[in-house]
This record gives sequence, structure tokens and C-alpha cells, in this order.
Amino acid sequence: MKKINTSPISGMQELLPESQATFDGLKAKIFDNYSKHGFFNIETPMIDRSEILFAKAGGDTEKQIYRVIKTTESAEDSDQALRFDHTVPLARYIVEHENNLTFPFKVSQIGRNFRGERAQKGRFREFYQCDIDVIGRGSLPIAYDADVISTLLTTFSTFELKTPVLARISNRKILSGLIEALNLQEKSQDIYSIIDHSEKVPPEKTKADFQEIGLSDQETAKLLSFIDLHGDRAKIIDSLRDLNINSPTFYDGISELREVLVLLEYMGLKDQIEADMKIVRGLDYYTGTVFEFILPEHKEIGSVCGGGRYENLTGYFTEQSFPGVGGSIGLTRLFYVLNEHNLLKNQETKFLDYAIIPMSKNEYKTAFEIATKLAEEDYRVTTVLTDKKLGDKLTYAAKIAKNGIVIGEDEVKTGNYKVKNFLTSETSDLNMI
Amino acid sequence: MKKINTSPISGMQELLPESQATFDGLKAKIFDNYSKHGFFNIETPMIDRSEILFAKAGGDTEKQIYRVIKTTESAEDSDQALRFDHTVPLARYIVEHENNLTFPFKVSQIGRNFRGERAQKGRFREFYQCDIDVIGRGSLPIAYDADVISTLLTTFSTFELKTPVLARISNRKILSGLIEALNLQEKSQDIYSIIDHSEKVPPEKTKADFQEIGLSDQETAKLLSFIDLHGDRAKIIDSLRDLNINSPTFYDGISELREVLVLLEYMGLKDQIEADMKIVRGLDYYTGTVFEFILPEHKEIGSVCGGGRYENLTGYFTEQSFPGVGGSIGLTRLFYVLNEHNLLKNQETKFLDYAIIPMSKNEYKTAFEIATKLAEEDYRVTTVLTDKKLGDKLTYAAKIAKNGIVIGEDEVKTGNYKVKNFLTSETSDLNMI
Repeated sequence: MKKINTSPISGMQELLPESQATFDGLKAKIFDNYSKHGFFNIETPMIDRSEILFAKAGGDTEKQIYRVIKTTESAEDSDQALRFDHTVPLARYIVEHENNLTFPFKVSQIGRNFRGERAQKGRFREFYQCDIDVIGRGSLPIAYDADVISTLLTTFSTFELKTPVLARISNRKILSGLIEALNLQEKSQDIYSIIDHSEKVPPEKTKADFQEIGLSDQETAKLLSFIDLHGDRAKIIDSLRDLNINSPTFYDGISELREVLVLLEYMGLKDQIEADMKIVRGLDYYTGTVFEFILPEHKEIGSVCGGGRYENLTGYFTEQSFPGVGGSIGLTRLFYVLNEHNLLKNQETKFLDYAIIPMSKNEYKTAFEIATKLAEEDYRVTTVLTDKKLGDKLTYAAKIAKNGIVIGEDEVKTGNYKVKNFLTSETSDLNMI
Repeated sequence: MKKINTSPISGMQELLPESQATFDGLKAKIFDNYSKHGFFNIETPMIDRSEILFAKAGGDTEKQIYRVIKTTESAEDSDQALRFDHTVPLARYIVEHENNLTFPFKVSQIGRNFRGERAQKGRFREFYQCDIDVIGRGSLPIAYDADVISTLLTTFSTFELKTPVLARISNRKILSGLIEALNLQEKSQDIYSIIDHSEKVPPEKTKADFQEIGLSDQETAKLLSFIDLHGDRAKIIDSLRDLNINSPTFYDGISELREVLVLLEYMGLKDQIEADMKIVRGLDYYTGTVFEFILPEHKEIGSVCGGGRYENLTGYFTEQSFPGVGGSIGLTRLFYVLNEHNLLKNQETKFLDYAIIPMSKNEYKTAFEIATKLAEEDYRVTTVLTDKKLGDKLTYAAKIAKNGIVIGEDEVKTGNYKVKNFLTSETSDLNMI
């Protein structure tokens, strides 16, 4: 009967209503928790000038950007594109609105971004990212790094997952200092990249990778034992000092990491954090704190949240310095993997609280009055207005609502309404305020 | 100091944080009220196949569609585009997921759509539309027309505007019947279009327009007196019957209109509705009930919400019949005009409830504990973590929060915290549960 293929484009999330309700619930929790922790929400346009969006992009990202053209234009006119993350539009926003913002500016962004990636399981071309950032003007105290991590950790708590979440934290300066001390600065980008991939490959492969870029056995051994370091604050600080590295950057990094860990302990999050020298983050714009969240009982899922400190967010757009720290939850992918692994406790099964079922049009007025009162009490209510038999109306109601209230002649006369719980089949009296 | 133009593309909404908070508040009220009235929220991809999106479009809309191409593709590969409304993707969704949906399907969609219109004041190229629709399979009782209108009216009530809202309601069949009776069917599209524009021009212009398409003086007079009819149910039904039109369609329309008005009266909305024969809606796919909301004290704003009944939503995609009724609030434009006319009562001025201000790092732990407790009580709280002098910290806090709590040595010792209200400058004790 279909005249045309009606499936969404591959790589796009399109949910059925019950699943969408669960997704919307998580999104609302993110929005609420970001607000409660003092982050101001903003929205930037999804379409922006190519010269803005391409300023930072490069490599794979650039290839994945969607250009946008009006049907009446030729492709050469296309100087506009779809945003591929929140970071670039945020940088533009900060520079554009600088004089109307209060710094440090705590800002959140929740919305869809677009990347024309090759479609594959669990990868999306259109995806929600839920970012927070704190942006300073000129400088920004390290304490805000802890503020960002704690806000993201408490956000995960609101999800009530069946499994714990762990924030793995490091500081880029520590590895930078080590690289300096080993005099391997010209190989630092390769080293970052090998460490960033080290968890997805066996240890022998990481060793071979280090040797392939020309590191000596001793250098390789030093880096391998370095990236193995992880644990709580006392343990990690001791282990790092024991390395006896001759580099001020190294000790700067330790001191920053220590401060972040102490503050997170102050915030009552000791059990949800760990220092881990394997964390470096792929992007080269991070300059200090870096972190990734994992579900330790489901390591195969990989990182579910990540971020860090960057000193030069707006470098492409202005001479002024706006250092920042931020992190992001990739909600579309997260929702996909949480469902795949059945880790969500509270799935919406029946979205509505009540279905009011008038027997005939004679009971519509009463039905509307009850529906209005229940809606005023914050319940989700529908009135079944089909011309079907009562049995059909009840079947419909039971599919979409937790409870049903049938209104017939008697109910209108007596004002006594019975609530049928469709889940338990129990019947009780309706009590309204 | 700027290296590049950082303004958003013209025609895009980009708000400062306080204004965004007000906007987000309205959006949340829409979402909540749609849910409370039993509408299931869905989200469709913003990018869809061109063959889907262009199926319905035509004329101006088609010219305004944004095509989307990956940077690595040539323009000829572009078989994808950005959605320009929620209606076409909804039709695709219904046909695609038919077997997993429960009909009548009450559905809401809140999100951005895209039209490459010529940029002008109050017109946006990227704009939020907040739609509700009820879709039947095969048939759909007229009572759902009232359900849609009442849900939209109560949504406007939650906005707490400084000015009332009026739903003007008609039924296309009434005018169709009149046109039949006058034997003017071949001119019906012109007549609809003249009536749709009649409010924006003086009456003499409307008269001239009718005559220009070849209507006689008598026909013109009949139509002019017809479109002048408006008022409450009793008045309008009497006036329409008095016209003595010989057409069953005409009386079908009256009967449907009557039912919708009666149900809205049952719902307690008598004061917010009016029948009005000037309402026809521009789009030719409406087949019965049509409605538009205005702010009667600000008629210059025009329609702030509109919709109606359509019998053939999915006609391009399937042979099956899915009649529906729906309506939409264009939130981006609405927000713009409400601000222009200063009609919003509750503007967010200071987004945060509390700023906690530790005097030094020694008070961070206590500050975090207080912040956590206040956040648990659903307040929006930030802890000021800058290394500035107390005066600077207070200035910062007063800019972003309603209240400030300074934590020094004494406060840590005694556990007594003072709240300074930045709006009134009054000080009080902090009482936490």
C-alpha cells in the first residue's frame, strides 16, 4: 500500500513514542541538573557560516560536515553548513556577545549536531550532545574543572542506571612533562594518539606502536608503566613523585590534578572518581585537566562522557584569551548503548496516567471536567473520544494509560468515579483534591 | 581584536542567556501542557530524503527548502534536505511506524524547522514549531478537533500573558457549501485566498478582489456579508441558517462547527472562543474545522497559532487513509512578537537562586556542602570559585543570582549562614531542611 520508502535516512535516530518518552526524560534530567548547578542554557543556530565552522575543523571532521544550500542556489553559493559540535558555535557566541556576558560564564548547550559519518551500528549522523562549559576572560581558576566534572557526575546519578559510573581523570601537563623530560617533544602528537588508543588494543600492540615511532626500549618501558598508573589521590600522587621526573610541567600537572581530586572529594564524590594516566583525550586542544566517564562493569561500552581544560577556545576568532573547561554527554549514542545493555531502570511503558472513558456523548462534559482537574494535579490525561463500543475504548485506553476511569450515566448522577489500574486490574475510588 | 565576523547568519534567533531562560520556560510549558493533555511527544530527523520532503512542498515552500550535501559530495548527489515543517515528517512517521502506534494517535512535536526565506524583521529561517496532531486510522471523530483547540488554548494560559487570547474557529465546509450553492466551484481557490487576505486589507480592496475574479455584485455582496459573520455559538448558527443556503455541505459544516463549539464550552473555554467566517487558512489541505488564535488587544500581531482538520495527511506516501486534526504554535516568531509588545509577565531577570561565596579556599568544602543541599531542594545554585577579592565576588554573584551566601571562617565554625537578597538588599538566616 506504500507508494514510497518511508524509513528515515540511515544513521538517524527515530524512536517510537514510549522510547521517546524515556529519551525525553533523560534529556530533561540533564537540563535540570545543569541548571541546578548554575549553568546558563543557550542555543546557537544549527546553520552557520562555513568560514566559522571550518575554522577549527580539519581532517575527518571537515569531510563529515554537511553543507547547506537553498534549492534556488547553485552549490557554489553554499557558504553555509550545519554545526558538527557545540564548541565552535560557542566560541563564536562568546566573541560576539562578550560584552553582554558575565565571566566566568557557566554555560550549557543541549541540542542536535550533524556529521555525515559512514552509517554503522551505534553511530549517528544526527545526534544530541549535552555540553557544559565554564569560560573565563583572561584566566579561569582550576576549581572550575572540578565544578564541571561534579556537575556531569551528578547528572549521571539522576539517570538511576543499574550500574555505577566512574570518572577517570588526568592532566595533560603530567604526560607533557614526562615527554619533555624524555626529550620526545617532536613525537608528542604520536604518543598522545597511541595512548588514546591503548585501551582498545592489547598491551603488546601499544608497545609495538611506541617502538614503531622510534622510541627506545627504555622510553617505551617508561611510558608503558606510566600509563598503567591509576587509583585514588594518595596512591597516584605518590606513584607519580616516585617516577622522579625532571620537569616543572610535570609537577604543575600533578598539583592541578591534586587540586581537582581534593575538590571532588569535598563534594562527596570520592567513590566515583579515579586518577588514570591512560586518559589523554584525542583532541589536541586540551591543555590541562582531561577526563572520561566509563561504566566500570561495562568497559566494552567505552567512554560515555568526556572533556577537559582548553586555554584557547576562541583563538580562530579573536586575539583575546578565553580559557575554559567543559565536558559533553553524547545523549543519542548513550541512550542507544544503555538500551543495548539494558541499563536503564525506569523505562516509560505507559506514558499516560489516566484515560477517561465516557460511555457516550452524554458523559463528555463530566469527562472533560475530570480530565481538567487531573491535569491541574499534574497528571497526564487523555479523554477517549472515539465512537466505538466500550470494550474497544477500554482496550485502547489500556494500551496508552496506566489507569482508566469509565464515566456512564450512574457516575454522572452519583459523582462517584472508579479508577481501574490497568497494570494490576485493581479498582479503587478516585480521590481528587 | 576580532579576526572574523562572529554574528549569526541573519534570520537566525540567537538569544542572550536571560532571554534564553525565558524562551526555555515557554518551551517547557508547551511540552508539559501537551503531555498533560495526553499527547505523545516524538522527534523526527531534521534531515530527510528530498523525495519525502518535496512530495508535499510546492511553490514558495519548495524554493525555500535547504538542500544538504556532504563536503565530499557534488551537489548532484544531494538527495537530502532539511525539514521545513513537522507535517511532512509526521506523515512519513505514521506510514513507517503504523503497526507500532495506537490510533487515534495523539502526537506532539517540538523542534526547529528550516526555511530559506528572505530575511526580514520577525521572520526566521530557523524556527521552533510546537505542533500537536491527532491522527485516526480510517476515521477520526470530530470531538478531537475540540481536544486539539482546547490543548492549545490551555497552553497559552500557562504562558500568563498580559493580554487575553481568542480562538477564532470556522469550518471549511460552510464556505465550500456556500460556493457550491453560488455555483462558483471553479473559483473556490481564488475565493479562499481573497478571504484569507481580507483582514490585512481594507474592505473595499476585498470587494474589488472578488469583482476582479469575475463575481457579480450579488455574489460579492453575499460573500462579503458571509465573512462578516462572527460571534458565539447561538448567534453564528442563527445567522448562518438565516442565509438559507441550498447545500448539504453547508449544513454539514454548521453541524461540525456546532459540535466543536459545544465541546469547547463543556471544557470551560466559552470566553476564549468565537466562531468567525473569515477564518479559512491558506493551505489547501484543510477540509473541515479551521482555527486561528489572535490576541484581540493586539490584532496587528496577527495569528499566533493555527490549524485544522485534514482528511489526507499521508496521501503522498500510502493508499491508506489517515485523517487528522492538528495545530501549531510558531514559538520563535511568537517569542519575538511577545517581546516586541512587552506582553510577557514573567521574564527571567536573574536566572540563579543562590550564589555561594567562599571567602577563601579554606571554605570551599563547606560551600560545596551548602550548594549540594540547595540543589537537592531544586534551587539553581553556583559556587563562586574565582580568586578575586570579596567585593568582586559579590559583584559577580549579584549579576547572576537572586541571593548570595558568604562563607567565611566564622560561618564554618558556627554553622550559621546569612542569605543576602540582592534584589532587596535584605539579609536573613539560611533555613535548610
